[in-house]
Amino acid sequence: MIPRYARPEMTAIWSPETKFRIWYEIEAHACDAQAKLGVIPAESAAAVWKAKDVEFDVARIDEIEAVTKHDVIAFLTHLAEIIGSDEARFVHQGMTSSDVLDTTLNVQLVRAADILLADLDKVLAALKRRAHEHKDTVRIGRSHGIHAEPTTLGLTFARFYAEMDRNRNRLEKARWEIATGAVSGAVGTFANIDPAVEEHVCAEMGLRPEPISTQVIPRDRHAMFFATLGVIASSVENVALEIRHMQRTEVLEAEEFFSPGQKGSSAMPHKRNPVLTENLTGLARLVRMTVVPAMENVALWHERDISHSSVERGIAPDATITLDFALNRLAGVIDKLVVYPETMLANMNKFRGLVMSQRVLLALTQAGVSREDAYRLVQRNAMKVWEEGKDFKEELLSDAEVTSALSPAEIEEKFDLGYHTKHVDTIFSRVFDSTAEK
Amino acid sequence: MIPRYARPEMTAIWSPETKFRIWYEIEAHACDAQAKLGVIPAESAAAVWKAKDVEFDVARIDEIEAVTKHDVIAFLTHLAEIIGSDEARFVHQGMTSSDVLDTTLNVQLVRAADILLADLDKVLAALKRRAHEHKDTVRIGRSHGIHAEPTTLGLTFARFYAEMDRNRNRLEKARWEIATGAVSGAVGTFANIDPAVEEHVCAEMGLRPEPISTQVIPRDRHAMFFATLGVIASSVENVALEIRHMQRTEVLEAEEFFSPGQKGSSAMPHKRNPVLTENLTGLARLVRMTVVPAMENVALWHERDISHSSVERGIAPDATITLDFALNRLAGVIDKLVVYPETMLANMNKFRGLVMSQRVLLALTQAGVSREDAYRLVQRNAMKVWEEGKDFKEELLSDAEVTSALSPAEIEEKFDLGYHTKHVDTIFSRVFDSTAEK
Amino acid sequence: MIPRYARPEMTAIWSPETKFRIWYEIEAHACDAQAKLGVIPAESAAAVWKAKDVEFDVARIDEIEAVTKHDVIAFLTHLAEIIGSDEARFVHQGMTSSDVLDTTLNVQLVRAADILLADLDKVLAALKRRAHEHKDTVRIGRSHGIHAEPTTLGLTFARFYAEMDRNRNRLEKARWEIATGAVSGAVGTFANIDPAVEEHVCAEMGLRPEPISTQVIPRDRHAMFFATLGVIASSVENVALEIRHMQRTEVLEAEEFFSPGQKGSSAMPHKRNPVLTENLTGLARLVRMTVVPAMENVALWHERDISHSSVERGIAPDATITLDFALNRLAGVIDKLVVYPETMLANMNKFRGLVMSQRVLLALTQAGVSREDAYRLVQRNAMKVWEEGKDFKEELLSDAEVTSALSPAEIEEKFDLGYHTKHVDTIFSRVFDSTAEK
Amino acid sequence: MIPRYARPEMTAIWSPETKFRIWYEIEAHACDAQAKLGVIPAESAAAVWKAKDVEFDVARIDEIEAVTKHDVIAFLTHLAEIIGSDEARFVHQGMTSSDVLDTTLNVQLVRAADILLADLDKVLAALKRRAHEHKDTVRIGRSHGIHAEPTTLGLTFARFYAEMDRNRNRLEKARWEIATGAVSGAVGTFANIDPAVEEHVCAEMGLRPEPISTQVIPRDRHAMFFATLGVIASSVENVALEIRHMQRTEVLEAEEFFSPGQKGSSAMPHKRNPVLTENLTGLARLVRMTVVPAMENVALWHERDISHSSVERGIAPDATITLDFALNRLAGVIDKLVVYPETMLANMNKFRGLVMSQRVLLALTQAGVSREDAYRLVQRNAMKVWEEGKDFKEELLSDAEVTSALSPAEIEEKFDLGYHTKHVDTIFSRVFDSTAEK
Repeated sequence: MIPRYARPEMTAIWSPETKFRIWYEIEAHACDAQAKLGVIPAESAAAVWKAKDVEFDVARIDEIEAVTKHDVIAFLTHLAEIIGSDEARFVHQGMTSSDVLDTTLNVQLVRAADILLADLDKVLAALKRRAHEHKDTVRIGRSHGIHAEPTTLGLTFARFYAEMDRNRNRLEKARWEIATGAVSGAVGTFANIDPAVEEHVCAEMGLRPEPISTQVIPRDRHAMFFATLGVIASSVENVALEIRHMQRTEVLEAEEFFSPGQKGSSAMPHKRNPVLTENLTGLARLVRMTVVPAMENVALWHERDISHSSVERGIAPDATITLDFALNRLAGVIDKLVVYPETMLANMNKFRGLVMSQRVLLALTQAGVSREDAYRLVQRNAMKVWEEGKDFKEELLSDAEVTSALSPAEIEEKFDLGYHTKHVDTIFSRVFDSTAEK
Repeated sequence: MIPRYARPEMTAIWSPETKFRIWYEIEAHACDAQAKLGVIPAESAAAVWKAKDVEFDVARIDEIEAVTKHDVIAFLTHLAEIIGSDEARFVHQGMTSSDVLDTTLNVQLVRAADILLADLDKVLAALKRRAHEHKDTVRIGRSHGIHAEPTTLGLTFARFYAEMDRNRNRLEKARWEIATGAVSGAVGTFANIDPAVEEHVCAEMGLRPEPISTQVIPRDRHAMFFATLGVIASSVENVALEIRHMQRTEVLEAEEFFSPGQKGSSAMPHKRNPVLTENLTGLARLVRMTVVPAMENVALWHERDISHSSVERGIAPDATITLDFALNRLAGVIDKLVVYPETMLANMNKFRGLVMSQRVLLALTQAGVSREDAYRLVQRNAMKVWEEGKDFKEELLSDAEVTSALSPAEIEEKFDLGYHTKHVDTIFSRVFDSTAEK
Repeated sequence: MIPRYARPEMTAIWSPETKFRIWYEIEAHACDAQAKLGVIPAESAAAVWKAKDVEFDVARIDEIEAVTKHDVIAFLTHLAEIIGSDEARFVHQGMTSSDVLDTTLNVQLVRAADILLADLDKVLAALKRRAHEHKDTVRIGRSHGIHAEPTTLGLTFARFYAEMDRNRNRLEKARWEIATGAVSGAVGTFANIDPAVEEHVCAEMGLRPEPISTQVIPRDRHAMFFATLGVIASSVENVALEIRHMQRTEVLEAEEFFSPGQKGSSAMPHKRNPVLTENLTGLARLVRMTVVPAMENVALWHERDISHSSVERGIAPDATITLDFALNRLAGVIDKLVVYPETMLANMNKFRGLVMSQRVLLALTQAGVSREDAYRLVQRNAMKVWEEGKDFKEELLSDAEVTSALSPAEIEEKFDLGYHTKHVDTIFSRVFDSTAEK
Repeated sequence: MIPRYARPEMTAIWSPETKFRIWYEIEAHACDAQAKLGVIPAESAAAVWKAKDVEFDVARIDEIEAVTKHDVIAFLTHLAEIIGSDEARFVHQGMTSSDVLDTTLNVQLVRAADILLADLDKVLAALKRRAHEHKDTVRIGRSHGIHAEPTTLGLTFARFYAEMDRNRNRLEKARWEIATGAVSGAVGTFANIDPAVEEHVCAEMGLRPEPISTQVIPRDRHAMFFATLGVIASSVENVALEIRHMQRTEVLEAEEFFSPGQKGSSAMPHKRNPVLTENLTGLARLVRMTVVPAMENVALWHERDISHSSVERGIAPDATITLDFALNRLAGVIDKLVVYPETMLANMNKFRGLVMSQRVLLALTQAGVSREDAYRLVQRNAMKVWEEGKDFKEELLSDAEVTSALSPAEIEEKFDLGYHTKHVDTIFSRVFDSTAEK
């Protein structure tokens, strides 16, 4: 976790305080269920709730763990200090540490997913607003970094919206995947604990019972969760890359918002650098790098080994905290992005009509010119624009072979921008109104 | 693609023949739609179907591409050679190469997914059969590679079943994600082609129209697809690892089927090596390694760049072919796995009752001994078994402090195996009967 | 291996023919050494060389392997078919399959490294030539994609030269790492074979004896090898990215060579796309993805397991073939890159002197203005250029607060380009003449 | 950074205090060089050293950065607060932030490498000691997890020693790679600062001048550094895996040291789990995951973009802190590993002589039996041992076809363990005495 790339709400999920609080709730709910089954005395179960509003002493628990070298035992010992060792003797009965640890991890991941879903909603709201704002802001579409045909900035935002909306759906699925708990005892056989306890604990903690756990909840669930975060991070990079390109000096179609007090560089005061989106590019790598170790965690020895644990101590907070920060930063960047529509037009016209060559090509073939000839005609005039700085439309108008196929009016018509934007509403409707992709 | 790890059905999807066949179908369906819209003559559209049963000449197309350095143009040129250049002039009208290439890739991935789903069904069937066959075959559960408490081999198969069933669900989702096509023209604005063409082509090819494409279908879909394959591969490794452990000399609870003609080693004829599952461990890595590049492919420049293409030429065939092979190999290994239940029992008894210590601990606390004292009592007797080779039950029976809390009959009862298997049916029902996880 | 991204020389290293040829040589040399030690008859050793010029029948070997399911035994059986089973009975004596397989893999990797070193030499030669050609071709340096201060294109090539030169050194080290062989028998104890055999075989095959092998050569060597290829591939991407940026429409400072017959796009004839460098960007990902599985291969069970084998069957040919192709393509791209120096100047002047702001800032502080004031003065005038299209130098000349610190001549001097290139020779000397980095 | 997997010495390198201290030293040395060149007043340079023993106020710097949004400017402002703004005005002159940041990062990585080298020395010392202690401790060698032929535990430690020794060499090279600094100004042209300043600063900071920097030090150096850490981590996993296998219940040839106060599990007191080496397995993944993002950092836009920065804020501390912890933990585990030589012997004899089958096979062929017949004879008797629990030697002695080729004494001799250990000294000499691999 890198403090400067962390937000408090997400960070809090991974604090020792939160962890012990969840441990406590699991143990307390388990006692309730055990009491209901008659396995432990009702008074003992009730007594556990005495600690309900107590803040656990993290330092004290660490102190005990330094001796026992076992974190759950350390916590239980501390709990006994609070509720009394006599009352505490039924706590954790029939359970194994992993019942607590794995269920807790999933509670934390579910909560993290909820925050990330809210983050995605912010990103989606910003994208939707900017898409509609710039639905008709024409700019040149580019393939390979080369001018192709006109499109609109609204379509750019709309495609990012569609992509992030897919990410939202994926994250909902990943959240569902991870929303299981296990209280199944030593090797998952429920030998020492009734399945009813698991059911009660899971219901109280907002989880489904894991259909079959061993000592652990199977790690394919977590692998899928982190893989999903990796895909979302890659989409963050995708949006960031677009903005970085728009801001580069020669393009300058948009800029990240530049607050008055901000100094762009210690040496070059005129520079406004797309540092936020560059930063997002790096943050995406940090999230993505957690995918492979999460997958390496799936294969465990027999009913469990603990190799996955240290990995998750790292990647669970790191990936969720970093992605949360990145999504919030991204929402802000989109929201406040300064757009320069005039530059967009100026850039588009850089090659004096050349971007319309596809239309002319088509018109020629539709007018009966063979595909090969049409290609040759267009290429011939295009090269004059490219190499000699001529105007494409004028060259076409003065090319006899072209005008023998197309009238001047037909040629003029090929340079009408409205031609390119006529289906924007259709696409917007697909993106913002349809539920086909849900 | 490594020939020895490839099956013909999957490999065929990625052959040039299949690719050109799909290209052809897309172009032909697009012509139909264009004709229906009145954009091109109906006869021209009909003429394209003349090539319906023609096998395209891959060598000829390659030859043309060597000149044009453009694969789609090479194909269209070859198609014109077949149906006549006059008839062919309306083919591909208003389309861009990516319309063909990207839609084709998704058709291939959907077909690959269908094979993989069938593969998973084989794995699931084998796991289900072996799970029920060994529902009550007791073996020791292990955590950290150390004996813990009894479980059954059926539960082992059942948990792999549940995991692979989740993978099946994930793959269905990934298949759905990737089942889109795009025929939206140069930068995805439909400027030169009506959205109705895309709708027709997609319907005919078994796809949904991509709600908003640029020149390409957005690569977050593919990233999710490969990520899903990576998770499945990790589960393959998980099952393989269990079998490798079962086969190691000191454990020997099961063995891969050993065909009579097979030589295990050039030097040691007695060796039966778990080479299939070791192989699966490696194959899992090969599938998993495609996840990160698929994610790196998501961020493209503006409306498209072609950096993703060479990556996909590698990983799309490689990941699907390798995983297909791996799943089939895995189904065979599970199906024919030779199981040694007696060795399972012998292994379990290696430490003369020690694995029952958890039960004794619990009984002591339930009999009123404090948790700390119970722990001490169990540990005291366990250490004698561990260090001096004593029998755990007998030690307990002769420990006055123990017998003051538990009667001999109560102690005897703690060593009953049935105690550990009493919830196996419940778990099986959760795994095989429930639909809660769908 | 993707045929279109493969060159024959490198591909040949990974053919079955080459593999069996190396196997044969190892076996034959081992027989020589065994004969010299008196372990096997000299005539038998000599007889093995009867197959020296025989081309092994790959199909026949595959046929035998289909029965024995063991590749080395299949090969030895075929060899016996050639030299006679009586003569063949001493072949492979005391050896284990891995002695042959692992030594062969390293021979192949060493040969692959030699080709890659030659590839790097081509890249280095091209970079050196273009660096000197454009030593004084001024262009704007950019940070964050934003204009910063002038530099020269020669420096760009020079830094890629320095980077590739480091890569050459790394690859030499990686080649050295991998240049070991092992003929140490079943678990590497030399119980059945004298260390002298290993020494002889290694010397003949151009390798060093592995100081301590088990059944296998330790895989940390291979991990380091593939990691090195991954770094080189990342540098390929670095150069490719620069060229892609230079070629984008708004920058257009250089273009990949565009052969007359080449069609840039099926739809837009004027487009010249940087497809080669985009392709290199993807190929870099394909090489890089082999690094993690190579590292996952390091941890093997006890004296060996065979999980690494399937991984290496994939990544060893794929990574070397792809990188070989990429380096050759890169050398060609650099060699033939079309450079537009005038556009470089035009781009630099886009913001009318603003890129000199750093110099002015410095001059102001050196003239006694406080850092904060100087910053404010520069920023004030810079903003007029940025927002109102003014000329930076003229604004400065008419800013009384500026001219009270700097004379007009001093201001003029700050806009001299020679100031920025004065140390180019120094840097070139560091890069091309120095051996400090070797 | 995960606090429980961090040691203070390494963590300190990455503290804000250390970072600002290095920044300060770089600025101060740069002032000295500038003064010597006559660019700034000698008194101003001298004044900077007034802060030599001052502890910088991290909170204050953060406070300033919150306004300026630029960390280096914030630091310089704080420095001015200490030494006086008049004295401070020449600090950083001609430099760019990256000169400070990149040089600092490399100083930190060099220091981290020095600690890691010392860590490796601890690991090497432990391995060397245990190797010699158990040079003749016979245990069974295993391939595929299956008993193969005898080896010694000393050889196991010796091969890990050789591997870690290679890692030490690699790390020395990686340290050398990263030991460069840059003070070359805005885009690396030295336009505003003399190369002599860079030379002075680097010499004082223990670095070499980067031959050609742009605004940044090229990231291929860092990629190589992290790749090297990834290889070392993979070797840590390799050793850890061996120990985990040795400790598993059915093998139990060794155990991690178990301190008296330690509780293995909250439920099963008899369990001694190899938690340290399981933990190392996970930590290896955490280090390894940093390799790919470090490689993704190599390709930067033009003279620099800042996407690498957030990545390095994460992986630089995380990878070095985690690996430092892991190597220390590993040294401790090796040092205190509890070894059970008797169990090693008992395990080896599990299959009553079968592991000697290779020797018998060889003896038969050397006695004139054809390879195929010998294989058949050995296999026939081996199967009786395997399936009927017979003793291999006795079966051979009573197999007429065998005894017609080998005398009883010859058969007896094949079961002599000394045969397998006769070259141990040779191998030890290669590993511990030779310098051939340096």
